[in-house]
Amino acid sequence: MENILEEKGLVYNNGMAWEVFSKHLDQQGNTKVFVIIDENTQKHCLPYFHKNYPSENGFETITISAGEKFKNIETCLNVWNTLSEKGADRNSLIINLGGGVVTDLGGFVASTFKRGLQFINIPTSLLAMVDASVGGKNGVDLGHIKNQIGVINLPEMVILDTKFLETLPQAHIISGLAEMLKHGLIHDKAYWERIKTADFSNKIEFEKLIWDSVEIKKKIVTKDPLEKNLRKTLNYGHTLGHAIESYFLENDNKPTLLHGEAVAIGIVLATHISEESLGFPKETLKDVTQTILHHFPKQTFTQNDIKEVIKLLVFDKKNRNGKVLFVLLEDIGLYKSDCVVNNTLIYSAFEYYKNF
Amino acid sequence: MENILEEKGLVYNNGMAWEVFSKHLDQQGNTKVFVIIDENTQKHCLPYFHKNYPSENGFETITISAGEKFKNIETCLNVWNTLSEKGADRNSLIINLGGGVVTDLGGFVASTFKRGLQFINIPTSLLAMVDASVGGKNGVDLGHIKNQIGVINLPEMVILDTKFLETLPQAHIISGLAEMLKHGLIHDKAYWERIKTADFSNKIEFEKLIWDSVEIKKKIVTKDPLEKNLRKTLNYGHTLGHAIESYFLENDNKPTLLHGEAVAIGIVLATHISEESLGFPKETLKDVTQTILHHFPKQTFTQNDIKEVIKLLVFDKKNRNGKVLFVLLEDIGLYKSDCVVNNTLIYSAFEYYKNF
Repeated sequence: MENILEEKGLVYNNGMAWEVFSKHLDQQGNTKVFVIIDENTQKHCLPYFHKNYPSENGFETITISAGEKFKNIETCLNVWNTLSEKGADRNSLIINLGGGVVTDLGGFVASTFKRGLQFINIPTSLLAMVDASVGGKNGVDLGHIKNQIGVINLPEMVILDTKFLETLPQAHIISGLAEMLKHGLIHDKAYWERIKTADFSNKIEFEKLIWDSVEIKKKIVTKDPLEKNLRKTLNYGHTLGHAIESYFLENDNKPTLLHGEAVAIGIVLATHISEESLGFPKETLKDVTQTILHHFPKQTFTQNDIKEVIKLLVFDKKNRNGKVLFVLLEDIGLYKSDCVVNNTLIYSAFEYYKNF
Repeated sequence: MENILEEKGLVYNNGMAWEVFSKHLDQQGNTKVFVIIDENTQKHCLPYFHKNYPSENGFETITISAGEKFKNIETCLNVWNTLSEKGADRNSLIINLGGGVVTDLGGFVASTFKRGLQFINIPTSLLAMVDASVGGKNGVDLGHIKNQIGVINLPEMVILDTKFLETLPQAHIISGLAEMLKHGLIHDKAYWERIKTADFSNKIEFEKLIWDSVEIKKKIVTKDPLEKNLRKTLNYGHTLGHAIESYFLENDNKPTLLHGEAVAIGIVLATHISEESLGFPKETLKDVTQTILHHFPKQTFTQNDIKEVIKLLVFDKKNRNGKVLFVLLEDIGLYKSDCVVNNTLIYSAFEYYKNF
């Protein structure tokens, strides 16, 4: 299992990606090609995809509704039924063209239809490029619980083309940024220093940061594909981040947060908890908080909100024996996984976030 | 991937199985143990299971409705939700105690909950013992299409205890027999000769036949876990068998066939097609047909029934490029996979079955 990622292709050389992609498809000779898109990528990304893959044999598109709330088993059922009706067989290929919802759901649908079809991810959002694209995690939500159902199964290939980012709303770019900041914090001080001061309007600098972010994630998941230990660090900020995202999603009084917006808050909270319980440097905590709040709008939490968020922590996939387990940091790049965190520390972190 | 089966345990030594099972659970120290059962195994098998596994830590049971028509995503959703509510985490263990529906569905639920929990199969029907138990195929039906959704993922352990068969209705014993007859036909002439003349009331002889049947299946799936070629032979009789089973299931005018009853018909049809197109010996065809009809009641098919069954063949998982592909035999143990079969041959096979 160690070299599972190396068996599959990750193509992120912008200039060559589509050439490699076309050659791969010609060689594979899949019986049918299905492209899963959502309403947004149908409009903004499909034409560009088609220009770069003017297939003679053609492909069929399957469109799902856009947004996290459709990342569920019902949508899977629709796609499975469509594949069935359109005669997909075991040698068909699924191409997931979209953000994290499309690649997560499409990867799960492909991995389970007739016990597994090949699939290729073409992430079109920054979040999907730097996070969902690499590592083979796929799946859907169960009610409001994120990613409860899924498998780990690698795509045949991931195509990264930053051209897709040009059609992305600014809030979604920022959302992806949260994962890039996280990659710096958990693994690479130099990267953190670069990204926190980066000029994102400089296209070349921004692209370089994206590739490096993917490299960090790839390095981590290659070392620990099944999340025995190191890979848990990728969950930094996600324990509370996921719970906040779920809570805001199910509450009509709250705005729906993008994944990265919720994770950004989770990163501040986890870093404050790290400071209180593992001695994470105070100055760096301040630095992290300032950087996050520079990019992400502050959200308000009542005491009741916090109580409800804490309740949702019981669904975290890292939990063991009913205990909520956090990944925390002693310093940038120095992680400690499976940390038990009491509620006082969580309330205190929210207090810090509120008053900063 | 070649030795994937060898990494996991198959325990079928009757006398030792429960001891090995208990030791395994003690060593693993899973946080929680969930036993998936259906209404039948709750009544007939759970007490015996509990007697053999008097766990101090206890376990929780999750009961699903019995029968193939509940082997679907809706039932999975119920079980996933129950696991969520009862606080299953990644270190929980699922034990599937039941026939093929329970082991197929339970294996899929376990493989996909939080991206995969460990599971153990304890097949309680003959069919599940000689077929579903080995090889890691799991999944559920999509509408009336059998096993369209699933993954290949091995249980940690399979416990075979023929004591469970004592509570099984005779029709279900016979249903399992179809797969055992198939194992002889596709792989082992000597086994075929033994099983066709066996005295099933002789408990020792019967048990020996079961173990040998499992050994044949294990040998095949170990050589070809991902069904590139050899494993396809296990599908002998299933191409038409599955279609007949689906057709009878969705038709109120037809009796619901047990899996083995449908496969038994499929075996006769496939063997007739083998005789017509690959020169399978006429005498052996007669022998096969007599053996099957000795055990399984004959079903009637109108021309329209046959037409509808043929329509359902397009959903067969072995199909490629819209072509229905059969596994056929030149003789016992001599298979040919990916055979294109035209409808005339299928009608002719039904005619033969009818007139025999």
